[in-house]
Amino acid sequence: MPELRKDPISSRWVIISVERGKRPSDFGMRISAKKGGFCAFCEGNEYTTPPEILAFRPDKSKPNTPGWTLRVVSNKFPALSIEGQLNRQGEGMFDKMNGVGAHEVIVECPDHNLTLSTMPLKSVEDVLWAFHYRITDLKKDERFRYVLVFKNEGYDAGSSLEHTHSQLIALPIVPHLVSEEIEHAREYYGYKERCLFCDIIRQESAARTRVISENDDFIVLAPFAPRSPFETIILPKKHASSFLPDGNFGLLAEILQRTLKQIDKVLNLPPYNMMIHTSPFKDENNEYYHWHIEIIPKLTKIAGFEWGSGFYINPTPPEEAARFMREAEI
Amino acid sequence: MPELRKDPISSRWVIISVERGKRPSDFGMRISAKKGGFCAFCEGNEYTTPPEILAFRPDKSKPNTPGWTLRVVSNKFPALSIEGQLNRQGEGMFDKMNGVGAHEVIVECPDHNLTLSTMPLKSVEDVLWAFHYRITDLKKDERFRYVLVFKNEGYDAGSSLEHTHSQLIALPIVPHLVSEEIEHAREYYGYKERCLFCDIIRQESAARTRVISENDDFIVLAPFAPRSPFETIILPKKHASSFLPDGNFGLLAEILQRTLKQIDKVLNLPPYNMMIHTSPFKDENNEYYHWHIEIIPKLTKIAGFEWGSGFYINPTPPEEAARFMREAEI
Repeated sequence: MPELRKDPISSRWVIISVERGKRPSDFGMRISAKKGGFCAFCEGNEYTTPPEILAFRPDKSKPNTPGWTLRVVSNKFPALSIEGQLNRQGEGMFDKMNGVGAHEVIVECPDHNLTLSTMPLKSVEDVLWAFHYRITDLKKDERFRYVLVFKNEGYDAGSSLEHTHSQLIALPIVPHLVSEEIEHAREYYGYKERCLFCDIIRQESAARTRVISENDDFIVLAPFAPRSPFETIILPKKHASSFLPDGNFGLLAEILQRTLKQIDKVLNLPPYNMMIHTSPFKDENNEYYHWHIEIIPKLTKIAGFEWGSGFYINPTPPEEAARFMREAEI
Repeated sequence: MPELRKDPISSRWVIISVERGKRPSDFGMRISAKKGGFCAFCEGNEYTTPPEILAFRPDKSKPNTPGWTLRVVSNKFPALSIEGQLNRQGEGMFDKMNGVGAHEVIVECPDHNLTLSTMPLKSVEDVLWAFHYRITDLKKDERFRYVLVFKNEGYDAGSSLEHTHSQLIALPIVPHLVSEEIEHAREYYGYKERCLFCDIIRQESAARTRVISENDDFIVLAPFAPRSPFETIILPKKHASSFLPDGNFGLLAEILQRTLKQIDKVLNLPPYNMMIHTSPFKDENNEYYHWHIEIIPKLTKIAGFEWGSGFYINPTPPEEAARFMREAEI
């Protein structure tokens, strides 16, 4: 019998469809082998990207020249424009504003052949530091209310460049999905006077069936009601409403890379999307929202049912996914 | 300058990204040519599907034999199970219930090589009648609150079988996206005492820039804030809260097929998803919700930004999409 499960964070129901039960080897999509060729993100080609906003240069080399270990540049084809004012206005009954925002690319390391799961751990830590510095800087811009950090790995996950990179978009409004999560978390807090996410961590830590791994500061879970097979969430164990304010990125880098290695091993280098959810700038420190990282391997297609309902059909129970992940030899 | 626009029906913001401005010929995805081979939906292979629930048989032939012009069968790999009770329960703090529901396939015509846009108009009308009959029948089952009718055309839109077909899923809960639309429509009605959708039709009919076509009963629009390029919505001009209660499907079949022909012409047979949104069974007749058909050609990928934010980046302004559609010679 399939099961309908409700995710308490998003309030979204999903169908865990055992009839269609899928093991890791049943999913066809794989990341394509890197083709090489000219790459704007490789060392020596710095002149082909917009000028760098931030770079880690252990050798003290000049901006926009070789010698870096990480670079942040503006997206060459930004979804939003960094210049201008919002100019909120109506068009009859409709609402619109100028598409003001920042759209940046974090080139995670100079080596074209590495990924977030294979690069040195120190580089993963640097990527997290880069997120932190850029968020801290963008927060000063009063036009922005939120920064969404995300990563598309592989063509089928929406990436058009194969050199490992993440992105961030600073937005003048809090995104819909984040607002929804916050609203549900706030309702829960209003009722229980406890953080929803802290309660999930407590229950999952006791049950163990959906725990993938943990270290001193973080826990990795297969959510109770995941949208897609092998969806994975990384949470700080201690309540924290905003992305790592204390800047201790060592343990996060370790568990993030371990999780990605497990995903690569179990699913054979799948394309994936990764997103950081954190509190909006206006309300950074609160008792009810708990920042986290979501990872969604791209294994199924979004089709008419999902588009029309907001429901997801997931052919792999999270308990099984968690077991495969735990047992992966990495 | 890109534009941020808010869809008043879903309350979702989208980025209309002119920097990335895309014309129809810029989109790479195409429906793959039909390969043929054994097909369970072709005439003569009725024995390979679950038994038919409904069929149109002008020659009065026996069930599950050739002679039909349209067949409805259970999905062989249903996402939900038709047997059993809901048995709502908790698992600690989580909520779940049995995955009870109906999952049916509408085989739209016997000819393997036709599509909804190329089959005889009479067959399109029959497809709409089949939706109507099945919804009417499933409504009698007290476990169900909603039927979502949808169609996935082409592999990239999630279809695994190339013979033209639609699907429906009867659900024990009203889907999230539909509830949201209803909630926003109800709020609007509470404030204005007018239907949100009727107001949109009035404004768009006057402005014309996003009108694609119309006939006596229906209007086809590019929404003000579409999630993806060439998203298209078909609405009854006169207020109606539920999918065509009067059963006059001729004019709907005509405009639906015309719209699909335009999409095929402008985008060169793209994969697409189609969904019908209607009022839930419990509240079929109301003043605030207005049933409609949504069509989303599958031209862009859902990536980390969309997964993390619920925002969509659309590289084609709907005014341009509407113009291309209007000017298509079909």
